[in-house]
Amino acid sequence: MQMELISKLAIPGESKLVLLVFDGLGGLDNAGRGTALEAAAVPNLDALAKESVTGFHNPIGTGITPGSGPAHLSLFGYDPLRFPIGRGVLEALGVDFPLQKGDVPARINFCTIGPDGNITDRRAGRIPSEEGARVVQKLAENIRISGVEVSLRHVKEYRAAVVLRGEGLGGAIADTDPQAVGKKPLPPTPLQDTPENQKTAALFAEFLKQAEQILKDEPRANMLTLRGVDLFHPLPSFRELYHLTPASIAVYPMYKGVSRLAGMSVQEYGQDNPEQEFDILEKVWPDFDYFFVHIKKTDSYGEDGNFEGRIHVLEEVDALIPRLRALNPDVIAVTGDHSTPSPLKSHSWHPVPLMVYSKHCRADQVTAFNETALLQGGLGTIPGTSILPLMLANGLRMTKFGA
Amino acid sequence: MQMELISKLAIPGESKLVLLVFDGLGGLDNAGRGTALEAAAVPNLDALAKESVTGFHNPIGTGITPGSGPAHLSLFGYDPLRFPIGRGVLEALGVDFPLQKGDVPARINFCTIGPDGNITDRRAGRIPSEEGARVVQKLAENIRISGVEVSLRHVKEYRAAVVLRGEGLGGAIADTDPQAVGKKPLPPTPLQDTPENQKTAALFAEFLKQAEQILKDEPRANMLTLRGVDLFHPLPSFRELYHLTPASIAVYPMYKGVSRLAGMSVQEYGQDNPEQEFDILEKVWPDFDYFFVHIKKTDSYGEDGNFEGRIHVLEEVDALIPRLRALNPDVIAVTGDHSTPSPLKSHSWHPVPLMVYSKHCRADQVTAFNETALLQGGLGTIPGTSILPLMLANGLRMTKFGA
Repeated sequence: MQMELISKLAIPGESKLVLLVFDGLGGLDNAGRGTALEAAAVPNLDALAKESVTGFHNPIGTGITPGSGPAHLSLFGYDPLRFPIGRGVLEALGVDFPLQKGDVPARINFCTIGPDGNITDRRAGRIPSEEGARVVQKLAENIRISGVEVSLRHVKEYRAAVVLRGEGLGGAIADTDPQAVGKKPLPPTPLQDTPENQKTAALFAEFLKQAEQILKDEPRANMLTLRGVDLFHPLPSFRELYHLTPASIAVYPMYKGVSRLAGMSVQEYGQDNPEQEFDILEKVWPDFDYFFVHIKKTDSYGEDGNFEGRIHVLEEVDALIPRLRALNPDVIAVTGDHSTPSPLKSHSWHPVPLMVYSKHCRADQVTAFNETALLQGGLGTIPGTSILPLMLANGLRMTKFGA
Repeated sequence: MQMELISKLAIPGESKLVLLVFDGLGGLDNAGRGTALEAAAVPNLDALAKESVTGFHNPIGTGITPGSGPAHLSLFGYDPLRFPIGRGVLEALGVDFPLQKGDVPARINFCTIGPDGNITDRRAGRIPSEEGARVVQKLAENIRISGVEVSLRHVKEYRAAVVLRGEGLGGAIADTDPQAVGKKPLPPTPLQDTPENQKTAALFAEFLKQAEQILKDEPRANMLTLRGVDLFHPLPSFRELYHLTPASIAVYPMYKGVSRLAGMSVQEYGQDNPEQEFDILEKVWPDFDYFFVHIKKTDSYGEDGNFEGRIHVLEEVDALIPRLRALNPDVIAVTGDHSTPSPLKSHSWHPVPLMVYSKHCRADQVTAFNETALLQGGLGTIPGTSILPLMLANGLRMTKFGA
């Protein structure tokens, strides 16, 4: 409803909008030093806060700790409860697989079976990534199933992703992992009895039969199980919803993946650090009007409990902010997808710092961009899905509701 | 939906959560002295506020004044709009009747009828409670209906509750009160024509027939009407929803009743004041991991317009807070079920003061627990149903949503 309403009100325009996401931005006090944002010297973000309306957002809901996929959907204006991302889709996105409508992705776990066909290790002895990659390669070279395109990608260690592409496939197939050793892998079974699911189940049965043959001489990864089978439905794109031409500038596959879900043009120029991401931003600036710029390491360091690392990334990116300002965007939103406090070493439920700059934002009295200062902000705590409408509004890209 | 989502994310844990409810906590300025919380000396609550994230909650919605039943459901995480409590259920809960699934409670109003059977007084001359209790006793001793168990409880003055327990009963029966004197009581009539409702209507018809006989010599309460007939459906319990083992420590029957609705273990040790409630809390501390502690008199004094009384109760309980802290709970939420400002002498719609303490709560800058100070809190005003998820999150008892 909300998305449809915003879509209906959205109008074309010339303004340019930037969403700068520090992954895992929000934090907690670290031994009396405050949060990473409080301990970091971020004069350029603070200066932007002075000209912004500020506060927090809740990506999913009060108390709920978001995963990265749904958290980004929320930032992009898609209700993550309404658009759940299946595990298979997520795994394919995570390795940057360009899913198309009707594709059926699934997650693969390599396992070890004994001579009787029973599973002896559900994770194939946690084989190293090199061995996993080799086995995936071997599978990919030898699998031949008529009437469907089978794509394989290694993910990590014993994990991989498979995508079936063909006509009339279904996605409601039960996991084949029996969830215990000493049992045979389960056959792929439709969860609902439709011709599409029957067809997919038969294809996966053939896939597993061939896989067992192809892998039979492997010492550890001599079989595999399928989980999270899912039929891929693309989301309505930014272009059709909001008259936006969006670009995504991100380093990690997962974020490229969710950007593709929203129909963003994923910029692939080999960027692998914030400075290079800002290079790309400048380079493609004339070609788009919505820019998602994703900074990963605030989250990675948070997960590692590395407070200094978080401070360093914040200061590194802060120093790049003048380059962003020099482009003179009409709207700049700076936030995170969720909090990752280094004391917790994990994603958390805490509301995420947020500021939205535009000439028309009605700036509040906040003069610093951190968790304490933002408590006085003009936004309070808003749902994550409200950020996109707020950016559109500040870009003068929404008409009024009713007369 | 929200409750199902929280339930899905909830995980078992070792943490202990306490919900301390001052009934009717929120107030209004009293002749320039501020609210009761502002006028009271509550150093221990203030100290807790310093370590907490604070703000307000709205039990039902903006502008809506809650009754105690729905307000507590909200505190317990049940959407009170989705789980309405019928008047019959509420009356039975109010006298602490242990309702079971399929029970049919109804509210009884004693009335006076003349020789022609027409009602001359719909409230039996507002008989005193002693007379009401005697009449209920007389009824209970003489009613005999085969195939169903009939339980009676006196409530107050001319009011009582009746519960039918048996197989295959329905709850959709029209009130028998004609809403006017000079008319006969209406027969119990099914609102929907089902065998269950037919059966219940027939049982209530028999009940009323016998009651008229049993009460025929009473000078005032010589007949009764039935209202708010309802079929009791228990709520999903805290245990099944959230892996919690909850205890309820409350003095008044109504609050024991709503606790039972949530599957709480109601502690019955004859406690009748806050100090004794804290005794119980200490006694049962090892046995549970969620503790609902209910302080009634903040509300009673508010309803009486007794500002000093409210201050006294707040100070009395504040002095007990160190005993709570000594138990070292992982999470403490302190709030009310609704506001009961003494100047209004009634429940009100005003948002209710709230603080949630844990090691991971992201404490804000608030240093006092009162309506003015909390305006600077980090929570803003959240729905009452968000308190439980927030407590679970702070107790590290929820996994993340999506990957």
